[in-house]
Amino acid sequence: MKINILTLFPDMFSGFLNESIIKRALEKELIKINVINIRDFTFDKHKQVDDTPFGGGGGMVLKPEPLFRVLEKFKKSKIIYTSPQGKTLTQNLVKDLSKEKEITIIAGHYEGIDERVIEELVDLEISIGDYVLTGGELPAMIITDAISRLIPGVLGNTASYENDSFYNGLLDYPHYTRPAEYNGLKVPEVLLSGHHKNIEIWRKKESIKRTYIRRPDLLEKKLENKEFSKLEIKLLDEIKKEIKDKTEGE
Amino acid sequence: MKINILTLFPDMFSGFLNESIIKRALEKELIKINVINIRDFTFDKHKQVDDTPFGGGGGMVLKPEPLFRVLEKFKKSKIIYTSPQGKTLTQNLVKDLSKEKEITIIAGHYEGIDERVIEELVDLEISIGDYVLTGGELPAMIITDAISRLIPGVLGNTASYENDSFYNGLLDYPHYTRPAEYNGLKVPEVLLSGHHKNIEIWRKKESIKRTYIRRPDLLEKKLENKEFSKLEIKLLDEIKKEIKDKTEGE
Repeated sequence: MKINILTLFPDMFSGFLNESIIKRALEKELIKINVINIRDFTFDKHKQVDDTPFGGGGGMVLKPEPLFRVLEKFKKSKIIYTSPQGKTLTQNLVKDLSKEKEITIIAGHYEGIDERVIEELVDLEISIGDYVLTGGELPAMIITDAISRLIPGVLGNTASYENDSFYNGLLDYPHYTRPAEYNGLKVPEVLLSGHHKNIEIWRKKESIKRTYIRRPDLLEKKLENKEFSKLEIKLLDEIKKEIKDKTEGE
Repeated sequence: MKINILTLFPDMFSGFLNESIIKRALEKELIKINVINIRDFTFDKHKQVDDTPFGGGGGMVLKPEPLFRVLEKFKKSKIIYTSPQGKTLTQNLVKDLSKEKEITIIAGHYEGIDERVIEELVDLEISIGDYVLTGGELPAMIITDAISRLIPGVLGNTASYENDSFYNGLLDYPHYTRPAEYNGLKVPEVLLSGHHKNIEIWRKKESIKRTYIRRPDLLEKKLENKEFSKLEIKLLDEIKKEIKDKTEGE
């Protein structure tokens, strides 16, 4: 998998590329990340990348010429523009993107990029969430990070992502490690029991409970898609009853 | 506004803190960002920060002791943990957070942090979106960036964010800059007209049209909250009619 990132601020990526999992993946050549300065594709003396918007208003807009020039090199890749106007990123979209051979991400800045670039060259606009950032660099890193960890070999073992949140449409269960008691706070007993089946059921139930309480929208979707096993349905019924009993007891 | 970030990978923040708007805001002392290595709060010889999860399974869990120790220093701040189990970040949540005096963000890594830390000390779990990342560092940057740009003085002029996507519940309109024609691709005529009222209406209509087509959920919410002006309702009716005529004409 090759990921090209077009940006006006290539130095912003230094910390990201030099730490932890991404660094190891680059060293093992499991992924290739190519950070390109859009400014290198200006041909004028002042290396001008932006200009005031037609029609007035604050802010600056990235000019079409440098982007058209640099994107000429990456025409065969899937071209993504990060913007709040895009399709909302989800783990399913990440999975689809992880199957591409080559992706090019335009990290916008200022007010945005000239719309003609988007209309002519961009395959997909992606929004990482309903909030506004100073630029597209962090979203480009988010997309790169989320995709990279799904590339075979990047994470140590597949177990590392098969228990992830959203992997099966549910939030993750709570995690505990040593010490078993800290300042009077104890780890749930079942986790210390060594009884694998009970631990598995406890984790599944906690996962469903959290999703039910915190993200009923996700649970609804999973029910609609008939993705629940018999055990999961039974656990969900137990959870609903427990919450009902608790509320009535108060 | 002071933002403390607790992480195992402080170097990941170097690029983020040294570029563009955040750098200027730090230099002008409009914000203060304090990146703290969780490992500095281990007291054992091997500086152990993580351990295997109780109950088995892959991955490592951040131990409770170092986090309890470091968070003791920041008890008065709002303590946030970035995790996919959290409340989904939205621009409204960003606005609320930008009013805090001091925020402490725990950037988790590996499988997560010991649940006792979350139960005892964390005020708010935040998820930046429904996807999984290798760690909480990028989400911590996202939250910091989104908050910082709302701090008065950080962006050049208020116009820079009052036209943002989501600022008034709508997606942004398209932007264009020079040249007016590039490789046969022209800028919409109204933007070259100099007629301010018409430009304003065109932009408003494009904003509504995009939101209607791409994010009907946002439009629905705005309608429910009765946030539409008479002009906006009129434009929405025009858009619906235009799309209907176009579909029937095909």
